[in-house]
Amino acid sequence: MNQELIGTLDQTIVLLQQHRLDELRELLSELHPADLAEVLQELEEEDRTAVVQLLAGPTAAEAISELEPEEQAELVTALPPAQAKAILDEMSADDAADLFAELDPEKAGALLDLMAQEEATDVRELLGFREDSAGGIMTTEFVAVQAHRTAAEAIEQLRREAPSAETAYYVYVIDAQERLVGVLSLRELIVAPPETEVRAIMRTNPVSVHVNEDQEEVARVVQKYNLLAVPVVDDQGILRGIVTVDDVIDVLEEEATEDIYRAGGVSEAEYETDLEGAIWPSVRARLPWLLGLLFLSLLSGKVIETFTPLINQVSALAVFITTMAGGSGNAATQALTVMVRGLATGEVERGQLIRAVWREARIGLVTGLICGLVLGGAAMLWNGSPWVGLIVGLALTINLMLAKAAGSLVPVIIQRLGLDPAVASGPFIATITDTFSMLVYFTIASLVLHAVF
Amino acid sequence: MNQELIGTLDQTIVLLQQHRLDELRELLSELHPADLAEVLQELEEEDRTAVVQLLAGPTAAEAISELEPEEQAELVTALPPAQAKAILDEMSADDAADLFAELDPEKAGALLDLMAQEEATDVRELLGFREDSAGGIMTTEFVAVQAHRTAAEAIEQLRREAPSAETAYYVYVIDAQERLVGVLSLRELIVAPPETEVRAIMRTNPVSVHVNEDQEEVARVVQKYNLLAVPVVDDQGILRGIVTVDDVIDVLEEEATEDIYRAGGVSEAEYETDLEGAIWPSVRARLPWLLGLLFLSLLSGKVIETFTPLINQVSALAVFITTMAGGSGNAATQALTVMVRGLATGEVERGQLIRAVWREARIGLVTGLICGLVLGGAAMLWNGSPWVGLIVGLALTINLMLAKAAGSLVPVIIQRLGLDPAVASGPFIATITDTFSMLVYFTIASLVLHAVF
Repeated sequence: MNQELIGTLDQTIVLLQQHRLDELRELLSELHPADLAEVLQELEEEDRTAVVQLLAGPTAAEAISELEPEEQAELVTALPPAQAKAILDEMSADDAADLFAELDPEKAGALLDLMAQEEATDVRELLGFREDSAGGIMTTEFVAVQAHRTAAEAIEQLRREAPSAETAYYVYVIDAQERLVGVLSLRELIVAPPETEVRAIMRTNPVSVHVNEDQEEVARVVQKYNLLAVPVVDDQGILRGIVTVDDVIDVLEEEATEDIYRAGGVSEAEYETDLEGAIWPSVRARLPWLLGLLFLSLLSGKVIETFTPLINQVSALAVFITTMAGGSGNAATQALTVMVRGLATGEVERGQLIRAVWREARIGLVTGLICGLVLGGAAMLWNGSPWVGLIVGLALTINLMLAKAAGSLVPVIIQRLGLDPAVASGPFIATITDTFSMLVYFTIASLVLHAVF
Repeated sequence: MNQELIGTLDQTIVLLQQHRLDELRELLSELHPADLAEVLQELEEEDRTAVVQLLAGPTAAEAISELEPEEQAELVTALPPAQAKAILDEMSADDAADLFAELDPEKAGALLDLMAQEEATDVRELLGFREDSAGGIMTTEFVAVQAHRTAAEAIEQLRREAPSAETAYYVYVIDAQERLVGVLSLRELIVAPPETEVRAIMRTNPVSVHVNEDQEEVARVVQKYNLLAVPVVDDQGILRGIVTVDDVIDVLEEEATEDIYRAGGVSEAEYETDLEGAIWPSVRARLPWLLGLLFLSLLSGKVIETFTPLINQVSALAVFITTMAGGSGNAATQALTVMVRGLATGEVERGQLIRAVWREARIGLVTGLICGLVLGGAAMLWNGSPWVGLIVGLALTINLMLAKAAGSLVPVIIQRLGLDPAVASGPFIATITDTFSMLVYFTIASLVLHAVF
């Protein structure tokens, strides 16, 4: 929130307390809906409802659309029915559907009955699609013209339907069965001679996505083809809606957050959590990871226990346990991070997975040799024993190579199993490397020490 | 790359080998430029140049714009001057500027001299801006009309200038000094009575960004206000260019990758690396992190060394070193991940940092108590000693609370220092927690053991 907006927020609270509602209405009516949404978000629930009641339908609807669906649902439920209806009718169908998805069925049914017939039908249709599919994020507000119409007729239709500016930059061309057959930009329509049929000037074979397509794939299509909106079709090729680029940006951000959370060993469930709210959702989301990894890490404890006699013999070995385990974990996390992101953005392609893993193993060998030499030297100086230096250096070299290979291989294996490679998190791979790094470390130690003494 | 495109790629290689160039031209001319770019990317350099020479200017230019700037520079340098000129003239000025930024100055000068006067001037201007600023990512292709023009005149100007469809959905309104005073969507222009002056129907106070604004901030503005393009102005308020939403998507993806890389302890330098290419850039990018963290982790080794007599006395303590260090690292990484992402997306706001850190500490206490009970119980059963169970359980509880607090506090401190909180990586925080978790673990162990025996 910028300084100016914080000032507006403070003023809002003062004007509300002093019941200077006309001044408040004037103040807020000058705001961009996105800024108004930020102000609403900071208000207590009661004040928020009071402010929304002050505002005119379209402004309130636009601002409310910017809030989180749960906040929207709370707000609309608190409004008098007439005003709830006015706002719901103004909201775009996809935003309204997201709001309804948060309501209990009874309340949702009552509100849907209030709404204008056409809007309610659109919302009911959208509620039938999976939330993270093209159908779940599309809007039904688009401009479609029959292929035999002229450019002039299409422009006339555009004037009549007067969609919002954000959905009117493409005009979709459909046949008699409402199947998508072409697309025209608004500019192409204006430049064309008025009497031309749209089928003569449209671009055929438009890029489109299926209603059941995953939202991440939809976002990738929009991104790849630099589209402002992508048409969504069903099994029959019938045009059902469009996904606009502003929703695509939100999807990409959501997916990036999910990937980042997973990489940090935080469950997706926490994505929806209010970071300033109660701690229980976060506790529930994190505890399974923490406990699971604790038990997994007992494997490395088992390895250490096996080598207890060796540690009792050369106690300097215990000193390098955390450095050995930590260094391997860090190397594996680096490889994992690059590979998971490469798979997510498509920079590492399916055909080149083996090459990418092999590349990481070589990076591991080179960085391992250098780090092994440095740490081995440091260990020798610290401990005074060349044998401890040799053990630590050699073990680190091997561990770093294994760590890089494992870090890059694990996401590939997970993808082969049909899962999202992003579930392979830093904490997970670090816990795995704990065990094998201890195994390598103490095995080399016992080999070297047996050979020497 | 999808199956169909892989087929096209195979066919391309066959047709090239058999010199069936007319067939090849026909095959490729049906492709969308974005698909053509994918095919080009997979070809050997020589074949790529041959294919580009086959294609017509606009198609080739659009496809080349989709390649990485370094690839573009290589390609254009390899083409005969006449064709290089044709492609450069067709490319949008911002893409051309990115390409020139990759060339050595002499080569760049020669190519700029070849280009059409107007295009070359635009490119020279854009080359003057920092690469990651609004000026560095904006395009100079936009439609600006004087405020006193009529709607009909504006539409006529639009027809004449015929910009690409992607930059024509907003018409910007400027005053006599070329300062930005308003904006109109193309739809609003069409719907307006032809003789109305644009200043009467424009939206005033349009959202805009300064040429020196950071690209991430530009992206946030476009995202917040759901824009398809944002106008870029200089100190005088003069309209200098626009940043379109497709470039914003690329910026957001780039920033997400940077954040993910940093979280995994991978330097930004690797972001530009070809993940299928030579290993040296990656080795150079990762080695400093690995070596730095190795030395940092020797601190935890120092702690273990201090407590060597205790380990010799109760060797079961060594068994839980990796579990203790790993569990704390995992808890800290979770807190760090949530906080860094919250700061990046603005979900955690400046005013609420203390509250967010306090929240993490409480999460740490609760998860610590539960994990401590479970691990303490497991340690007791494993080892047969209630005292080892008590030490392990108590130490883990305290460590998890400290880890959560540290994991959330470190990014806040880094932000206060004026740095990007994303530089606080999982490996970094895990290495820090290694040291203090060992300190807590062995201190508790020596306190308990002294009290008991």
